[in-house]
Amino acid sequence: MSEATSQPVGAKSAEPRAAEGPDFNKGGGILPAIAQDAETGEVLMLAFMNAESYAETLATGRAVYFSRSRNRLWRKGEESGHVQLVREIRLDCDNDAILLKVEQIGGAACHTGHRSCFYRRVTDGGLEVVETPVFDPEHVYGKKGG
Amino acid sequence: MSEATSQPVGAKSAEPRAAEGPDFNKGGGILPAIAQDAETGEVLMLAFMNAESYAETLATGRAVYFSRSRNRLWRKGEESGHVQLVREIRLDCDNDAILLKVEQIGGAACHTGHRSCFYRRVTDGGLEVVETPVFDPEHVYGKKGG
Repeated sequence: MSEATSQPVGAKSAEPRAAEGPDFNKGGGILPAIAQDAETGEVLMLAFMNAESYAETLATGRAVYFSRSRNRLWRKGEESGHVQLVREIRLDCDNDAILLKVEQIGGAACHTGHRSCFYRRVTDGGLEVVETPVFDPEHVYGKKGG
Repeated sequence: MSEATSQPVGAKSAEPRAAEGPDFNKGGGILPAIAQDAETGEVLMLAFMNAESYAETLATGRAVYFSRSRNRLWRKGEESGHVQLVREIRLDCDNDAILLKVEQIGGAACHTGHRSCFYRRVTDGGLEVVETPVFDPEHVYGKKGG
């Protein structure tokens, strides 16, 4: 809704105008962000972003999330090296959800070694694992786990 | 966080436990739910579910969300008729995000008439609309809008 004469707040020339970006206020400062494989369309994971992580994602071209449990920026791949190269960013109609189309380095987004964090299907009998891990988490993260 | 001596995660664990499901407590009662086109893989929308909406989704095979703004169940398509037939449900590794693979009746998930709510791409110059609406919202919802 920015008028033609308005200036982006605190933004450098190449960044999206504040009025045309995610409305982080809607989520109390954080919004859900979906990572989708840019080639296959597979949904890899869901995480959250705050304004700072979103800005760093735009600036670096790598997915940066906000970890609610650790209360800090989470540069995806910071431990494993399995970064996500962001090919495209979409916003939803309400500006309160973010979709990243990414190239997942290392082949797996999930700390369990599965390509997608959504590797379990809901069935009448419970959860069924429907994907095979592409790596052993202990080799990637060490014994301390994800 | 599993230690070396604990039972390996995923190994021979394809045997589902009936009690497994989304952990709604993690999200203070609501969790993000992604609707993805079961055929094309397109991410259609992101909404939220509470335990009641999840249970109704399982029971009816139609996507039911929880509307935070209206503070009530939101049976997707209740106004438009554009329901989502749920073909598969996936849970993520932390049990705090839900992925629905759906057949979108009416061809569009978004109240704007676009197939996907993520119809705008972030560019250096702002947001760019990259999809064409498949219906006129006024014909579907009337003049009051979505």
